[in-house]
Amino acid sequence: MEPEVPEDQIVDLARRVQALEDHLAIYQLVASYGPAVDSQSARAVGELWSEDGVYDPSGVNTYAGRAAVEGLVCREPHLSYLQAGCAHVLSLPQVAVDGDTAVAVNHSRVYLRDGTSWRLERVSANRWELERADGAWRVRRRTSRLLDGDPAARDLLRPPGQD
Amino acid sequence: MEPEVPEDQIVDLARRVQALEDHLAIYQLVASYGPAVDSQSARAVGELWSEDGVYDPSGVNTYAGRAAVEGLVCREPHLSYLQAGCAHVLSLPQVAVDGDTAVAVNHSRVYLRDGTSWRLERVSANRWELERADGAWRVRRRTSRLLDGDPAARDLLRPPGQD
Amino acid sequence: MEPEVPEDQIVDLARRVQALEDHLAIYQLVASYGPAVDSQSARAVGELWSEDGVYDPSGVNTYAGRAAVEGLVCREPHLSYLQAGCAHVLSLPQVAVDGDTAVAVNHSRVYLRDGTSWRLERVSANRWELERADGAWRVRRRTSRLLDGDPAARDLLRPPGQD
Repeated sequence: MEPEVPEDQIVDLARRVQALEDHLAIYQLVASYGPAVDSQSARAVGELWSEDGVYDPSGVNTYAGRAAVEGLVCREPHLSYLQAGCAHVLSLPQVAVDGDTAVAVNHSRVYLRDGTSWRLERVSANRWELERADGAWRVRRRTSRLLDGDPAARDLLRPPGQD
Repeated sequence: MEPEVPEDQIVDLARRVQALEDHLAIYQLVASYGPAVDSQSARAVGELWSEDGVYDPSGVNTYAGRAAVEGLVCREPHLSYLQAGCAHVLSLPQVAVDGDTAVAVNHSRVYLRDGTSWRLERVSANRWELERADGAWRVRRRTSRLLDGDPAARDLLRPPGQD
Repeated sequence: MEPEVPEDQIVDLARRVQALEDHLAIYQLVASYGPAVDSQSARAVGELWSEDGVYDPSGVNTYAGRAAVEGLVCREPHLSYLQAGCAHVLSLPQVAVDGDTAVAVNHSRVYLRDGTSWRLERVSANRWELERADGAWRVRRRTSRLLDGDPAARDLLRPPGQD
């Protein structure tokens, strides 16, 4: 029982478990976005963001605060998307956690029903700046840009945690 | 060593590790479905379900029991899909575990080879009701509906764990 | 406090935590590929592979060693893809770890901007043979094949860990 003190081992394990929990919590945050918007669960969408969090989906309009982000699922073009049939699908993010903040990058796609098939309405690069507040991970800023050849869009996908 | 007894800390850590294991096991269950059907690994498909588990892919026909679910990859339209070239891709699920049961929601897509490209044959909402049996997570019921504007399809994507 | 010795419990927990860490590290490895190639982060792409790792993307040419894999993002057709707008999206992998090696299988898609939408340039089956070296998981061999009806492509998706 000597050179390795169990208490030290427990502290080390607890740190590793916390790192895994952070990682999975961020996966769940990102995985929740698509189902929430496609089921028009406005409140669930808003709660993914910090109270004063920002969503910058295109560089044209920026939505600041939960109410603004929630509002997106209750108006055009989202209402038309829902009526036609839509799927907002987000890929498994690459995540870099640094204490109580984290950055995640991934791809998102909006599939839109078109006749008997679906077309790709949007294919975007995403950079998520996240923060832990009151024990929960939330979005401080999400920036998305269409992958249409714009170099600024692809720069969002640069490896996080190496700034 | 006093106020915090190591044994209590170990019990707490074990509970947290179990929660992480449950979560990852459910990710793996969902991640296994696409590769299994696209490689026509019938037995692997069946084993994702409980012995008497149900797959309700469209609201028209319901498949109850492993043999019925396995049978889907051995007949039309799946045989034509395999011959043409298909990909059943499931997104990272949002998961809510409650003891020995869990609910997961996500999107699935069937890409089908069409000329020199692929078209979206199906884009669906999924709700997975899962159960732990003999230490393994399995599907008790999977319900899928095309995201074609039908409100019942998008309701499947409502946040799990808030019923 | 008798029959269960805390030290044994700690060893058991440490083993379970290591298994979770391996699993998440492999998720992150796979999740990093798409953002790295779409942001033309050549070095980040190369570092996903072992020094002498291999990428066999189509059965025509095979790329051995980091420099060869990095080179793919600096020449055609990748340059044209970046200019048009592209997204390399990889699905959540099914993973089987065996000590210091692992196999992961999943789907990948290349979305390419085409007019005002995107088309599916490639939909592929992937089998990743991974190894742990110096504490990090890296790609020893990645084999990808278009899911165009070729039986060899779908065989890549057979359940890993059951060879």
